Amino acid sequence: MLTSIYLIAITAEAMSGALAAGRRNMDLFGVAVIAFVTALGGGSVRDVLLGNFPVTWTQNPHYIYLTVSGGLLAVALARFMHRLRDLFLVLDALGLVAFTIIGCNVAMQLGYDVPIVIISGITTGIVGGILRDVLCNRTPLVFRQELYATVSLLVAMCYLYLLNYQVSADTALLASFSLGLLSRMSAIRWGLCLPLFRYSPARWD
Amino acid sequence: MLTSIYLIAITAEAMSGALAAGRRNMDLFGVAVIAFVTALGGGSVRDVLLGNFPVTWTQNPHYIYLTVSGGLLAVALARFMHRLRDLFLVLDALGLVAFTIIGCNVAMQLGYDVPIVIISGITTGIVGGILRDVLCNRTPLVFRQELYATVSLLVAMCYLYLLNYQVSADTALLASFSLGLLSRMSAIRWGLCLPLFRYSPARWD
Amino acid sequence: MLTSIYLIAITAEAMSGALAAGRRNMDLFGVAVIAFVTALGGGSVRDVLLGNFPVTWTQNPHYIYLTVSGGLLAVALARFMHRLRDLFLVLDALGLVAFTIIGCNVAMQLGYDVPIVIISGITTGIVGGILRDVLCNRTPLVFRQELYATVSLLVAMCYLYLLNYQVSADTALLASFSLGLLSRMSAIRWGLCLPLFRYSPARWD
Repeated sequence: MLTSIYLIAITAEAMSGALAAGRRNMDLFGVAVIAFVTALGGGSVRDVLLGNFPVTWTQNPHYIYLTVSGGLLAVALARFMHRLRDLFLVLDALGLVAFTIIGCNVAMQLGYDVPIVIISGITTGIVGGILRDVLCNRTPLVFRQELYATVSLLVAMCYLYLLNYQVSADTALLASFSLGLLSRMSAIRWGLCLPLFRYSPARWD
Repeated sequence: MLTSIYLIAITAEAMSGALAAGRRNMDLFGVAVIAFVTALGGGSVRDVLLGNFPVTWTQNPHYIYLTVSGGLLAVALARFMHRLRDLFLVLDALGLVAFTIIGCNVAMQLGYDVPIVIISGITTGIVGGILRDVLCNRTPLVFRQELYATVSLLVAMCYLYLLNYQVSADTALLASFSLGLLSRMSAIRWGLCLPLFRYSPARWD
Repeated sequence: MLTSIYLIAITAEAMSGALAAGRRNMDLFGVAVIAFVTALGGGSVRDVLLGNFPVTWTQNPHYIYLTVSGGLLAVALARFMHRLRDLFLVLDALGLVAFTIIGCNVAMQLGYDVPIVIISGITTGIVGGILRDVLCNRTPLVFRQELYATVSLLVAMCYLYLLNYQVSADTALLASFSLGLLSRMSAIRWGLCLPLFRYSPARWD
C-alpha cells in the first residue's frame, strides 16, 4: 500500500513543481527539472545526509519517467487545475505523509537514533518543496503554509511512537495517515497555522 | 583533447559566475566563491549524488586555482566583456558540451544505467549555472535561455547513441561537440527556444 | 576549549538564522529549521563534500536540540536584540573562527591537502550563513559584509601556517582566535571591506 501511495505522491509533488515553474515562465525542460527535483529532491538530500548510497532513484529509472511525465501532465492540465484544487490538496497531503513515513523507515533501517529518524522523515517530506521554491526564487512556502512541515513532524512522531509500542506496522501506517490527512485538511479548512515570528528591526544585520 | 577543452570550460564558467556576482555588487571574495561554485558545483553535485567519493576537485587543487583566477580575470576584463561577447558565448557552449560528456563518462565508469548516465551528464552541464543563479538570488537562466539545458540533453543522447553503436570514442566526441555547438549557436542566432509554460492562476498556492 | 566555544557558536549561529526567518515572517517550525540549517548546514556540506560519513550531527542529537532551542530563544529575546547587538556580534565572530578551525581539523584528519583543508575550513565557517540567506530568499550577506568570509580565510591560513611550524596546538588556536576576532571587530568598527565588483552592462548576462 505504501508503495502505491508513494507513486501517487511523487506524481502529485512533480505536478506541484511544474506549476511553480509555470509561474516563473520556465520552458518545458525547466518544468521537467523542477518536477523531478520537487518529487525526488527530498529523498536525495536524505540519502546523501545519511550516507545511504546509491541514492534511491539512481537504482530505479521509472521514478524519473514518472516525475517528468507528472510535470508535463500538469502543463496539459494547467487550465483545469482550479477545478482539481481539492483533489490536488488531498494528493499533496497523502504525499507528505507517505514521504515522511518512508524517510523514517530508511533511517531506521540504517540504524540511526530516534531524533535522526524523525529528521529523516521531515527531510523527505518537505525538502523537495523547499528546493522547488529556492529554484523558483521564492521564500519556501512550507514554512508559512497551514501546518505543512508541522504535519510531517506530527506524523513522524506518531509513527515512531506506535512502532515503539509494538503496534503492527499496518496499524501504525493507518493511524499515521489518518492523523496526517486529518490535521492537514483541518488546517486548510480552518486556516490553522503555527504562530508566526515577525521580526523587522529598524536597523540590524 | 577533452581535458584541454575542460580546462577552457571551467575557466569560462568561472568567468560567467564572476560576472553574475558583479551584478550583485559582491566583494572579491564573493566573486571568487561564485566563480568556483559555478565552475565546479555541477561536478560536485554529480559526484555526491552518484556516491563518487572523493569528489573530483578535492584531488586536484589546480582546478581551484584555475577557477579563482578565472573569476578574478573576469573582474579585470569586465569593461571589455561586451566586445568579447561572441567569443565568450562560444567558450560557454564548448563548456556545456564538455561538462555534459565528462558527466556521462563518470556515470558510465561507475556502472550506472543509461537514464542515470544522461542525468549525470545534464547535472554536470547545468547545475553549476543553477547554483550561480540561486546564490545570486535570481531565477535560474538555464531554464529560460535559448536551448541551454536542452543542448545538454541532446549532446548526452547523441554521445551515448554513438558509443552504443561501437563508433570510436573520438568520432563520438567530435559528433557530439558539433551537434552541441551547432544547436546552441543556432538557438542564439535565431532565438530558438522550447515552448514556455506560463501559469498565473487568479488564486492558487 | 574549542568544544565549549563550538557550543556557544552553534547557538549564536542558530539565533542569527532565527532572526533572518523572522524577517520573512516564518512560522515557529520554519524558525527552528532555519536555525538548525544555519548552525549545522556548513558542517553538513563539508562532511558530504569530503565524503566524511556519517555526518557529524547525526551522531550527536544534542546539537539538534541546542540549535532548535537557540532559534526559539532568539524569538523570545527578539525585542531585546538591539541591546544585545554588540554581544551578538562578538559571539558570531567567535563562531566564525571556531567553525573554520574545526573544519580545517576535520579535513586534516581525513588526510586532504592544504588547499582542500582551507576550503573545508571556509565551508564550515560560511556555508551555514549562505544556506540561511538562500532559504530566506536574499543575496548571501557573507559576500558583502565587512570582511566576513575573508576572516575565515585568514584564520584558516594562520592556523595551518602555525601548525606547519610545529607551534603547539593551543598556541595556534589562541593566535587564530585573536587574529579572527581582531580582524572581524576592526572591520565592523571601521567599516573595512574588500573591494566590491560592480558589473551592470547595458545588455548582457
